[in-house]
Amino acid sequence: MTTDVNSLLPYLLRRENIARYQDGVVLIGDRRKYPFEKSIYPCHDVETVAQAIEGMVTQGGGPWLAAALGMALAAREVAGQPDEKVMAHMEKAAARLTNTRPTNTALARRLEDAVEVVKSALGAGEPVEKALLDWVEGVQAGLEEKLYTQARFAADLIDDGDGVLTMCFAEAGFILTLALAHQQGKQIQVYTPETRPFLQGARLTAPCVHELGIPVKVVTDNMPAYLMSQGRIQKYFTAADLITLDGHVVNKIGTFQNAIAASYHGIPYFAYMWMVDHKSPDRASIVIEERDPAEIKSCRGTPTTLDEIDAYYPAFDITPPHLVAGVITVHGILSPYDLVRHYT
Amino acid sequence: MTTDVNSLLPYLLRRENIARYQDGVVLIGDRRKYPFEKSIYPCHDVETVAQAIEGMVTQGGGPWLAAALGMALAAREVAGQPDEKVMAHMEKAAARLTNTRPTNTALARRLEDAVEVVKSALGAGEPVEKALLDWVEGVQAGLEEKLYTQARFAADLIDDGDGVLTMCFAEAGFILTLALAHQQGKQIQVYTPETRPFLQGARLTAPCVHELGIPVKVVTDNMPAYLMSQGRIQKYFTAADLITLDGHVVNKIGTFQNAIAASYHGIPYFAYMWMVDHKSPDRASIVIEERDPAEIKSCRGTPTTLDEIDAYYPAFDITPPHLVAGVITVHGILSPYDLVRHYT
Repeated sequence: MTTDVNSLLPYLLRRENIARYQDGVVLIGDRRKYPFEKSIYPCHDVETVAQAIEGMVTQGGGPWLAAALGMALAAREVAGQPDEKVMAHMEKAAARLTNTRPTNTALARRLEDAVEVVKSALGAGEPVEKALLDWVEGVQAGLEEKLYTQARFAADLIDDGDGVLTMCFAEAGFILTLALAHQQGKQIQVYTPETRPFLQGARLTAPCVHELGIPVKVVTDNMPAYLMSQGRIQKYFTAADLITLDGHVVNKIGTFQNAIAASYHGIPYFAYMWMVDHKSPDRASIVIEERDPAEIKSCRGTPTTLDEIDAYYPAFDITPPHLVAGVITVHGILSPYDLVRHYT
Repeated sequence: MTTDVNSLLPYLLRRENIARYQDGVVLIGDRRKYPFEKSIYPCHDVETVAQAIEGMVTQGGGPWLAAALGMALAAREVAGQPDEKVMAHMEKAAARLTNTRPTNTALARRLEDAVEVVKSALGAGEPVEKALLDWVEGVQAGLEEKLYTQARFAADLIDDGDGVLTMCFAEAGFILTLALAHQQGKQIQVYTPETRPFLQGARLTAPCVHELGIPVKVVTDNMPAYLMSQGRIQKYFTAADLITLDGHVVNKIGTFQNAIAASYHGIPYFAYMWMVDHKSPDRASIVIEERDPAEIKSCRGTPTTLDEIDAYYPAFDITPPHLVAGVITVHGILSPYDLVRHYT
């Protein structure tokens, strides 16, 4: 592919600003501080990478990359040691990194692949750190190509004059879709719910869309249905942390209630296929991460209620296939009921 | 009625903490600062009262009372002057106070009544300030009696073990309902969405419910549908800034999307009738207040996105009657399709 996808993307989504590796240090773009600061969070060991992922330094499409680079870092730590010792160290690193966030299983599957890369390199007597970095580069290039293919299909779903709703931060797939539709001369108005408690919609999505020169309005998470009732929304797009083979879309909490409201108003909902996980065949296989309730009770460090008040924080929700108009894949826009045929 | 409703209520909802009048000063409980501070906002003239209402010093059931007391304040300013001058001054005050917030038309209707009180007092040669204060006391007592009657009906809707969802701050009607159900020995778990951008759910509802000794969890506004899908919610109750005679419920933005999600999950939605407004017969008569978009872009003074990003802030939404299981009135739980018969 000749298209330089990276150059089409806004600051936050460029490869080097998501996470990169430099002489044994994993440098993660700090999404907690963006857009108020463009800062890089350096990790000198695997535990720091794991804690950065748990602490939301990166999120969405970032954790797998940070974790994969964390594996390279782990390899450097044991370079030159006996294979058995290397293998034990690498498997321990993979386990720690896998346990950071349970819902987006792409992370777990990528780390399983990383362990295979380690085995092959050891078998071939090649340096493990380099083998992992080469593998990451290949995966990244493949992902970008897939995202670009998906974005071309998705851009065709957008009509001139559309109001487009999203939720949380739908990553490069969505941002590329908007960029392509914009290039095609379509007028678009994007609405992005702020996405409490971490405000990914207000902090990540809105600045990225704005950077593309496309009109975007931030709303609070309680507004999507009313926007729909006013005729402001024609399409609803989100990323997916996981799409099970039976068509359930797992994504940031709020995605589901927007999909219900979209269905009520006759508005189609499309989700981007991120990675097929054959270990997640159905709804029953989904693990919804529940985070510390204290995170609900503040906003960028400012308390929103009293300390003694209880809270609850499920981080993701599940949208059943009958609310999904199409899954955006490299094969085109698939019915959520037809994934099994394409992916098994 | 012998029940002292005021004593059943938590701090925030006690008469004297909503708004009171003292020697020409309107003292408004500052709901912007609660629960972090229990502070009183003093208003020495009508313009300050009006700006306090516009600026959300009080909200929900507070503005009509603050405005009515503002009329007493206006009367004191022109005490002893010729009737014509008094009347002109009072009508000007009523107009200013009416224009503060357009959606909750109870404010406008109460101020029309206040102007009638002024006319009667002038006709009878009685002091206008005192006539207004007596009238306010009568209205307040009547309201409390009505709320208590409604709450007794509503408490019967709650079953032992229910999870109860609300939205924004559903005022004394809802809080009394919970207090009565609690007295009846029913175990209840309340969930309150934080209600961005002003956080009435996190700041007002949660502390009030907690003060009653009833378990309450704060969630973000993107979570209600997921809570429902988990089987955590059995009933959904909200206040209403306005219910039109044809059964449309106007309330804080987010009420509508929760009602759609409740309907999807087979959960009944009940709204408290606040005041019948014969000038609001149908959906077409509703005016939705749109507030300054800048208010969306911060949370308790902390920015949530960049300055240059656009936002949109409709403050209320409209739930159509087919999503409303019942309207809680002094006549019992009415069908939203039967209001015309009871109220015209």
